[in-house]
Amino acid sequence: MKVACKIWLDHHGKAFGEGPYELLKRVEKTNSLNEAAYQMRMSYSKAWKLIQTMEKRLGFSLLDKKIGGLSGGGSQVTPKGKELMKRYEQFEKEARKAIEKAYQKHFGS
Amino acid sequence: MKVACKIWLDHHGKAFGEGPYELLKRVEKTNSLNEAAYQMRMSYSKAWKLIQTMEKRLGFSLLDKKIGGLSGGGSQVTPKGKELMKRYEQFEKEARKAIEKAYQKHFGS
Repeated sequence: MKVACKIWLDHHGKAFGEGPYELLKRVEKTNSLNEAAYQMRMSYSKAWKLIQTMEKRLGFSLLDKKIGGLSGGGSQVTPKGKELMKRYEQFEKEARKAIEKAYQKHFGS
Repeated sequence: MKVACKIWLDHHGKAFGEGPYELLKRVEKTNSLNEAAYQMRMSYSKAWKLIQTMEKRLGFSLLDKKIGGLSGGGSQVTPKGKELMKRYEQFEKEARKAIEKAYQKHFGS
């Protein structure tokens, strides 16, 4: 037996969580939402809608999209997006550690 | 913005969580799985399957079913079921408190 959990930020619905975090992490690495979505086996349109929904609920932009140019465009995570990722990463790690600790206390052998 | 989470015990799939806890709590009060399911707007067959799945994954019985008799039968939570409920209740409360604390630390104003 083990403990499992899903944690997310909520503001009139899911505003940020593991999935969006993972997606942004891959955009950071690839500078491409298309590539990030592909790596997560998600359609581009689904990834794009997800980002738009999160942005609406968070109240700020997560991605800067560069259209065209020599490099053929691409996406970059905004500074506010990076800040959110950093906070979420630390928060999620701490929360999971605390949950595991409480689980061991009450269910550990 | 706020933090939200779902926490459950896992053993080859969901073995116990908020839904089953709520269902057992209502069985304790009503001595009837049928009534408990009704209160949760769940069909009896769905509630019964849920209990059976949990019992299989946990490895022990959650309900004692009395068939017929003067009182017309009914269900009671087993001692092991009660013990699990008690532990889960304490664990869940502590885990949620810890998650909220971590959230405030990283996202509180």
